Amino acid sequence: MEKNISPLQKARADYKPKLPKVLAQFGSNLKASVGGPTESVADQLQVKALFPNTYGLPVVTFDGPSADKAPSIKAGVILSGGQAPGGHNVIAGLYDGLKKMDPQNELYGFKGGPSGLTENKYVKFTDSFIDEYRNTGGFDIIGSGRTKLEKEEQFDTVIANCKALGVNAIVIIGGDDSNTNACMLAEYLLKKKAGIQVIGCPKTIDGDLKNEWIETSFGFDTATKVYSEIIGNIQRDANSAKKYWHFIKLMGRSASHIGLECALKTQPTYAIISEEVAEKKMTLRQIVTDIAKAVKTRSDAGKDFGVVLVPEGLIEFVPEVKNLIDELNDLLAANSEYFDRLSDDDKMQFVGSKISAESALAFSGMPASIKMQLLMDRDPHGNVQVSRIETERLLIDMVGDILRIWKAKGEYKGSFSCQNHFLGYEGRCAAPSNFDADYCYSLGYTASALIGAGMSGYISSVRYLTKSADKWVAGGIPLTMMMNLERRHGKDKPVIRKALVELDKKPFLTFASKRADWIIEDAFQYPGPIQYFGPSEVCDLTTVTLELEHN
Amino acid sequence: MEKNISPLQKARADYKPKLPKVLAQFGSNLKASVGGPTESVADQLQVKALFPNTYGLPVVTFDGPSADKAPSIKAGVILSGGQAPGGHNVIAGLYDGLKKMDPQNELYGFKGGPSGLTENKYVKFTDSFIDEYRNTGGFDIIGSGRTKLEKEEQFDTVIANCKALGVNAIVIIGGDDSNTNACMLAEYLLKKKAGIQVIGCPKTIDGDLKNEWIETSFGFDTATKVYSEIIGNIQRDANSAKKYWHFIKLMGRSASHIGLECALKTQPTYAIISEEVAEKKMTLRQIVTDIAKAVKTRSDAGKDFGVVLVPEGLIEFVPEVKNLIDELNDLLAANSEYFDRLSDDDKMQFVGSKISAESALAFSGMPASIKMQLLMDRDPHGNVQVSRIETERLLIDMVGDILRIWKAKGEYKGSFSCQNHFLGYEGRCAAPSNFDADYCYSLGYTASALIGAGMSGYISSVRYLTKSADKWVAGGIPLTMMMNLERRHGKDKPVIRKALVELDKKPFLTFASKRADWIIEDAFQYPGPIQYFGPSEVCDLTTVTLELEHN
Repeated sequence: MEKNISPLQKARADYKPKLPKVLAQFGSNLKASVGGPTESVADQLQVKALFPNTYGLPVVTFDGPSADKAPSIKAGVILSGGQAPGGHNVIAGLYDGLKKMDPQNELYGFKGGPSGLTENKYVKFTDSFIDEYRNTGGFDIIGSGRTKLEKEEQFDTVIANCKALGVNAIVIIGGDDSNTNACMLAEYLLKKKAGIQVIGCPKTIDGDLKNEWIETSFGFDTATKVYSEIIGNIQRDANSAKKYWHFIKLMGRSASHIGLECALKTQPTYAIISEEVAEKKMTLRQIVTDIAKAVKTRSDAGKDFGVVLVPEGLIEFVPEVKNLIDELNDLLAANSEYFDRLSDDDKMQFVGSKISAESALAFSGMPASIKMQLLMDRDPHGNVQVSRIETERLLIDMVGDILRIWKAKGEYKGSFSCQNHFLGYEGRCAAPSNFDADYCYSLGYTASALIGAGMSGYISSVRYLTKSADKWVAGGIPLTMMMNLERRHGKDKPVIRKALVELDKKPFLTFASKRADWIIEDAFQYPGPIQYFGPSEVCDLTTVTLELEHN
Repeated sequence: MEKNISPLQKARADYKPKLPKVLAQFGSNLKASVGGPTESVADQLQVKALFPNTYGLPVVTFDGPSADKAPSIKAGVILSGGQAPGGHNVIAGLYDGLKKMDPQNELYGFKGGPSGLTENKYVKFTDSFIDEYRNTGGFDIIGSGRTKLEKEEQFDTVIANCKALGVNAIVIIGGDDSNTNACMLAEYLLKKKAGIQVIGCPKTIDGDLKNEWIETSFGFDTATKVYSEIIGNIQRDANSAKKYWHFIKLMGRSASHIGLECALKTQPTYAIISEEVAEKKMTLRQIVTDIAKAVKTRSDAGKDFGVVLVPEGLIEFVPEVKNLIDELNDLLAANSEYFDRLSDDDKMQFVGSKISAESALAFSGMPASIKMQLLMDRDPHGNVQVSRIETERLLIDMVGDILRIWKAKGEYKGSFSCQNHFLGYEGRCAAPSNFDADYCYSLGYTASALIGAGMSGYISSVRYLTKSADKWVAGGIPLTMMMNLERRHGKDKPVIRKALVELDKKPFLTFASKRADWIIEDAFQYPGPIQYFGPSEVCDLTTVTLELEHN
């Protein structure tokens, strides 16, 4: 065991994750009932052409034991991309499933993400090794990494390394990109008749790997519960001190699922959803004016405090800012040497003279600090580092400007003191909630069953998640089924379609129907910390998003 | 009840806080056993002269029922200063204690802090009102405020308002300053024979209201548990991604108790204790060099990641910086008009030419952003706004400078990518842990017993807190007993002596004995979220600090 672990970890180590009935009853050597051939969500012809061996595979579900003898399996597993609560339980479920099928089966963990597979860095898992990590947060069991596994040379190295070890199945735990690459690897291995299967598992706290077959990706439940605990505490503080506006930026660049879920859980004064901003083509000016109006409305009612939730990726969803950033990237990349020699003032002037009128307008409206950030803080390719831009401070600054003008006109009499927060690392490695502990363990266990059933190019799927775990349905979805073509760096790439917040679906509509009230009355909710041992209605609830999408 | 509260709040509302045996058994109409006359911790003659009516009072403990009929009481209560978890339970305990003594007794809550008493803004508490707030976080039941209650005019207004309402006892829930003022009020009311008692309750998450008789102030346990949950999550992330150094600033300006407790709970790579910095007269240069050495040591072992805990008040404990700030305050206050007209460069020059050599040296070593913050960001009195200075970013910047130099010399080969965090508002209004829920309720209940026993100028005291609640000893400590004289704004003021981290006591010594190992091996602990319903060793543990101080 880990040396002197915390009392909660000790108590939590004994937790036995719940499994779908078929897995609990018959173990992992199961009969796969297959449906008809499938199609990709879009661009069927192109996707089919790219994936001749993995396209059109049937959806698979497990509902009974297999009559055949279990195959003998040596599997390898990797963690890919950003941390999400529950990764350790996916590996524990996979390990237990393999051992249940045949005690001789083995599981190797490739270290540091996808590069572990190409660099052949691995550990062989044992009972005591796995036991140390059951129901814990983090990816530290084997580490993670962001290396992209997409080139044929890499695939050939993978084959060589797996052959040398005798590994005949690979499980890739990752987000949409990692699972896209998992499918490319599966396709290549089938083409080469390498005799190595590939199974994916859906991970991301952002919640954007989601569709008809993947109801939610693991970690989203736990991470949003941790963020909501903190948001609730800050709201209670705002409502007690009654003197600050707290602007809280929430992790999640490509979609606002986290912000929406946290808003539904905590009922803040105000919350911004990036997808709505893009859909309505809102300008930065409109966004901050709307916030300023909310501040004024409350101030007129004697309330100079509140909480605003801001999605990390917001500014990339503001059309004018997105254009500005695209123009800056092109401009500065093309002129970097010359540009870097200029003084700050000359830089401003140079940029002002070269970008479009719309972008110039957007640029001129920004606070000096952000302007400099846009010009100075660039990555090795000369690109603006969007993730470094402190959107929450940008909003505070611009809202403040508007309120000062209104105050000068006598239209606003309040005070606008702000605190800003960014919630990201606080939740990515939290110990999984009961839901994520069960879901992740089931995903890993199901992956072992998919391997046992000889599948490749599938993502482990556990569905009907709003029901109790015993009623969950375990199976596999062909990765090609979730794909479409998207433009990346100037060429069409097959990718798993990202799930954005849909403005015509229940989660957003529910939020939209309540938010006007939240500005006026204090409807703050205080979810409190994740509980593991209490009454089921406290400990086993999953996300509001999932409830609204499926009940 | 609050409209649609969270499932955890619903479940938590039913929690029945534990009480010391004597209170649980005999209620609140108790016989006070008194000790001999007491002395203040220092400056006895001066303190006695200032508090003729409240000096030398005996320590009081309750160990049995009173033979006399319970007096009829109309009490008023205020929350003073920053939020701390458990304030609502102090009020609930006080309310229940008063009603238990005599159902006719009444409790009024004065709103928005001390000013509620002078402005006569109050609510009358009822069962349903109180029930809504049992075991919840925050001070929103009546709000809080920072108005200082210390002038005789204010005291006279308090008398008038209390007389009008028939209030014959006041309970002040606050930190060291608020309790000092509570004693001044008690003294004045006795002098005026106003027939109004005053009782204090020890509150502060900072943990600096602590002494031989007050083992800990309420809220410290819960707040440090919330911070430690988050620190643990960040540590697990650092240990999984293995690519970032996280600098985490922790609330607590005047003492480092929070930082020390969190370090003992989470075992970070590195933690700074302000009191040690002051004791050893460390320069900023020494502090950042020590951190840089730790970064290099780990980097040489292949670990370019870690977690550093930074106390909010650090720079005020660095002698050279404290002097610099004092000099700047005097200089800028005396020349503000002239200074404000200068350009930024001229400001730098003006300051450089006017401050002492030592301060000039300290100033010149700081990053430009911090220099400007020191010069520009001043409060209405022209003082530097120390709390606004982003100490964690200052350290990251200065450590980075040193590492760049070492890298140029080939002495350091690693990468130093950082993330910074500030934990404060995340914990002040968390729902109280079982310990704080019990302790706060007991403090309030004991306050009612002190009123019933006719005491004034006392602080509610519940001791032997490392034992189970039934073994806790309830009583009262004369506020004068904890006082000494301190220089404030040029004159001697009687104040309750602040408890700083003592370098020769067990909590610090334990930390000091382990920290060298924490730099080399990853000893990270992951405490996880506060649990309310699980096994006692998970749910009822109090702070490591308290354990080390009393066991």
